Amino acid sequence: MMSQRKQIAIVGTGLIGGSLALRLHEKKLSSHLIGVDNDEKHAEKAIAMELVDEILPLEEAIQRSEVIILAIPVDAIKRELSGILDRIDGQIVIDLGSTKQQLIESVKNHRNRGRYVAAHPMWGTEYSGPESALREAFTAKAVVICDPDACDADALVWTRHMFEKIGMRILDMEAEAHDLHAAYVSHISHVTSFALANTVLEKEKEDNAIFNMASGGFESTVRLAKSNPLMWLPIFLHNRVNVLDVLNEHIGQLEKFRDALYSGDESKLIHWMENANRIRRIVG
Amino acid sequence: MMSQRKQIAIVGTGLIGGSLALRLHEKKLSSHLIGVDNDEKHAEKAIAMELVDEILPLEEAIQRSEVIILAIPVDAIKRELSGILDRIDGQIVIDLGSTKQQLIESVKNHRNRGRYVAAHPMWGTEYSGPESALREAFTAKAVVICDPDACDADALVWTRHMFEKIGMRILDMEAEAHDLHAAYVSHISHVTSFALANTVLEKEKEDNAIFNMASGGFESTVRLAKSNPLMWLPIFLHNRVNVLDVLNEHIGQLEKFRDALYSGDESKLIHWMENANRIRRIVG
Repeated sequence: MMSQRKQIAIVGTGLIGGSLALRLHEKKLSSHLIGVDNDEKHAEKAIAMELVDEILPLEEAIQRSEVIILAIPVDAIKRELSGILDRIDGQIVIDLGSTKQQLIESVKNHRNRGRYVAAHPMWGTEYSGPESALREAFTAKAVVICDPDACDADALVWTRHMFEKIGMRILDMEAEAHDLHAAYVSHISHVTSFALANTVLEKEKEDNAIFNMASGGFESTVRLAKSNPLMWLPIFLHNRVNVLDVLNEHIGQLEKFRDALYSGDESKLIHWMENANRIRRIVG
Repeated sequence: MMSQRKQIAIVGTGLIGGSLALRLHEKKLSSHLIGVDNDEKHAEKAIAMELVDEILPLEEAIQRSEVIILAIPVDAIKRELSGILDRIDGQIVIDLGSTKQQLIESVKNHRNRGRYVAAHPMWGTEYSGPESALREAFTAKAVVICDPDACDADALVWTRHMFEKIGMRILDMEAEAHDLHAAYVSHISHVTSFALANTVLEKEKEDNAIFNMASGGFESTVRLAKSNPLMWLPIFLHNRVNVLDVLNEHIGQLEKFRDALYSGDESKLIHWMENANRIRRIVG
């Protein structure tokens, strides 16, 4: 029964939806893959790349599927989720958005709440669109499932089965805790990277030498600044309070460094950097 | 004549010196490679890995070499440079430090100033020590040569030949301009990465979920925080004024984002991120 393949609709055939589609097929989790995408070029590309078997309007996709996976920006998820739950008849609905509290809150009293599983696979790149899809995207990555107790048992069991089969580590978490942690391990990295890019681009107006000198360390810290603003704006807005808190702490750290450098306090600078070195425990 | 191999002493057999040693031998630029290292374990490792042919004390290395390359932290370069120029007899002395103004200034009136070439290969990683050495480290990277007019023609010609043969792109630059640009494309990335690590580690005291959730984007922005404080402290101190200027601009960018998010100014946030997207022109 667990190995039964399902008819799966993927709403949003971009980086995340496209990568998942590749993997659902490969791992024999899907008997049929339906793509839904408002962006006609993305839809065409998803078909041309054989990410999905067909493209359908949302309405038809809901009717023709057993599982509906939402891989669109979080503001679009929030706009669609309740209406999709209105129209389902036993389907499982899974969202893959980067924030969770507002989404869960928006359907907490819905009669079909139990059919909905709120998930966040901890993977992404600075690219978007079907052509960015990667087969190994989710392998060995974490996926957070939020407030699993609110899900119907069968919906939760199948969703877990799916994430495990594509090679992910599942973490259960309260939505509130998820959004706080996501601010620390993902959202703030994007803010600092956007800010670093802007800092350098301001300067580059005056001089082009920067182009020629940029190397690996710079590329690594700035690459997330290439991310899609239309995906990130709603994430920042949904997670506004946490992002502001973390950002204030981060600015505080920069000011600590600045003040120590300004006054030439070598032992404070060394201590500050040695403390940062402990990040090796987290990122090897 | 240009293809004549030289006896080369590498002072500091760590990440940079070790990587260069591998390449000097491979490209037949060296007839003999002498390593100098105060750290006995590094010295032993450099011999065991065959990065260098022998380890000698600095004094003997100076006497026995035609080229002396300094691949040690910039405070150590500043401490040693003038004394090395005192003792040479026609040798070429090249330093590979990440700041240039203070080093050049410290020997500007030295009778052997012409023998000294101030260079900065734009490559590094967050690791240090001989075991971190990489054969392809410098391939296709930029190397800045500062104030080349102050060098004797033969010293400059051979140094350029060396960098070209190991596959680097040479940029000539005034030391002052170099230090400013280095603050933008390298030093600030390290500051933000150290600060991001500290921000997250402060939080992690309270909760370990962050460890399990950290993924690629986070790793990429935080990896430079693993860098060696004893290498970076003197860089920040040497380039204090520029680093402080760039850091203030960077904090200003973060505050711009914070204020826009605080007030929910969507168009300002989008504009800010779209502007950052232009970094694609620099880092592809």
